[in-house]
Amino acid sequence: MKFVTLADGSPDGRLHIVSQDGRRAIAADTARTLQQALETWADNASQWHTQYAALEAGSLAGAIDLDPAEALSPLPRAWQWLDGSAFETHAFLIQKAWGHPEVGLNERPLMYQGMSDRFLAPTAAALFPSADDGIDFEGEYGVILDAVPMGTKAKDAAQYIRLIVLINDWSLRAIGPTEMATGFGWLHCKPACAMAPFAVTPDELGDAWRDCRVCLPLQVERNGVAFGRTNGDEMKFGFDELIAHAAYSRDLPAGTIIGSGTVSNKDYESVGSSCIAEKRAIETIAQGAGNTPFMQHGDTVVMRVEMDSGDSLFGEIAQSVQIVT
Amino acid sequence: MKFVTLADGSPDGRLHIVSQDGRRAIAADTARTLQQALETWADNASQWHTQYAALEAGSLAGAIDLDPAEALSPLPRAWQWLDGSAFETHAFLIQKAWGHPEVGLNERPLMYQGMSDRFLAPTAAALFPSADDGIDFEGEYGVILDAVPMGTKAKDAAQYIRLIVLINDWSLRAIGPTEMATGFGWLHCKPACAMAPFAVTPDELGDAWRDCRVCLPLQVERNGVAFGRTNGDEMKFGFDELIAHAAYSRDLPAGTIIGSGTVSNKDYESVGSSCIAEKRAIETIAQGAGNTPFMQHGDTVVMRVEMDSGDSLFGEIAQSVQIVT
Repeated sequence: MKFVTLADGSPDGRLHIVSQDGRRAIAADTARTLQQALETWADNASQWHTQYAALEAGSLAGAIDLDPAEALSPLPRAWQWLDGSAFETHAFLIQKAWGHPEVGLNERPLMYQGMSDRFLAPTAAALFPSADDGIDFEGEYGVILDAVPMGTKAKDAAQYIRLIVLINDWSLRAIGPTEMATGFGWLHCKPACAMAPFAVTPDELGDAWRDCRVCLPLQVERNGVAFGRTNGDEMKFGFDELIAHAAYSRDLPAGTIIGSGTVSNKDYESVGSSCIAEKRAIETIAQGAGNTPFMQHGDTVVMRVEMDSGDSLFGEIAQSVQIVT
Repeated sequence: MKFVTLADGSPDGRLHIVSQDGRRAIAADTARTLQQALETWADNASQWHTQYAALEAGSLAGAIDLDPAEALSPLPRAWQWLDGSAFETHAFLIQKAWGHPEVGLNERPLMYQGMSDRFLAPTAAALFPSADDGIDFEGEYGVILDAVPMGTKAKDAAQYIRLIVLINDWSLRAIGPTEMATGFGWLHCKPACAMAPFAVTPDELGDAWRDCRVCLPLQVERNGVAFGRTNGDEMKFGFDELIAHAAYSRDLPAGTIIGSGTVSNKDYESVGSSCIAEKRAIETIAQGAGNTPFMQHGDTVVMRVEMDSGDSLFGEIAQSVQIVT
């Protein structure tokens, strides 16, 4: 199944079920919002599946043509957003460029609690206070969960994964080292993320959902030029392991979103990167300094994942940067 | 005004206005929940004030005797919880005990994003996975905000402070250094906090609300024995400065909670501490090791703030620790 949340003037929008090609949609039965759907999934998923099948068959009264400009983030706000950093190549490149010991990722996943009161719409402008802060996008995958009890182990965690999403995790890199040095983690550095419009059930990925990893290339364009095409298959920790990590000392509420961190591949020379910081790290290792500029006012980023069918699995993130002075 | 949220089977509870002595309450007009109240404050506060005055005068039909066991956290869940660390004595003691350079707090406040999907009820047991994790309480003050625009400066921030609360920020100290070393900040180390039952408007503090600081002693008892009586007046950064810090690169939604961090005083030898970690730091400095144990299964902590009138300003946090195996 594919879900989309359309603007209706309310903070959480109106949940719709969307056709596989992303062109037609129908208001979801029994749940006004995706949060409500997640809280009642066991009781209602079969009903949504019936709607989805009828939509695909073209036989559903009340279906509308989907206007991507009406799409909000699937969860316009969430009770919890926990972002991992699960790609070892990314860690190695950043460590090497900054002259840190190359320890990669140890046995303990890296994860921080991010702001979750707002996820920007896929085509919303991203507003920042200053172009001097090193404005960067980060393409990553995420999962949206049902409620997970404290102490859940990785082997039992996959059952709680309800939906998969594509996320643009905006980051202010110039502030990052200062905030990391405090030990308190990121705050200024991590303003609101955006999500691509469609949240999809794992079965929509077919064989590309393997070992709780999204084994598909995440296409990133900056200012209309290809920037990266990194595959999610090289996660050192699968989402099942990230969920178990997140749930060590807390229950996770339905609607918790867990992120993979910047998607990154060993073969970065041919597939590129999904954030500017990593590209600058590669340049720094090769030539002593990064020369790819961070984002400036008016710069744009597009992210999508195309299936072999040509369909865009998650729809498209297409944002521009605006400096608010 | 004083507000309390009473259990009614819903996740956000039912908002009530409570008498100054904490004994009588009336369901709030026009807002079922505190979150709704915060989102409609400008329109409705005068109505709640009328209810509060009538309750104080003893003339309000429908008022009930308040049963503290029915009280939830004022916000049982919130869209955002940003916890500062604004007491320099606490920073110095921890730094000195751990052998770090004593830099205190620099010009940039320390703040992390904490879990906000659940705040424990004032008398709820606190559940943890292991007694080996260094289970600690932290007594601190917090403010609950109206919506704050990105870029708000400290001089303009006080106007957004709607309510003041007393918070027990549970912490797992044994995990802290590991999580701080990653630069990603705390996750396992910071499970759900609890709040005292009453959220109060700043005018309830009278002269004790000065320079956006809560200038009152926070009384902490562990297992029925006095542990600390630290005053909030020594915050290096006032809540106005903490709000400005929080809002640098994000809008803050109504219902955002900002914490002061562990309340701590220069005169710790006579007033004690509001967390075990600080007491152990003092012991480590004096005698080479901390000997106050962290919390074990069945241990209890009580927090309150008594006014000169004898009234308990925020009501009481009274929790026990339970290890879930």
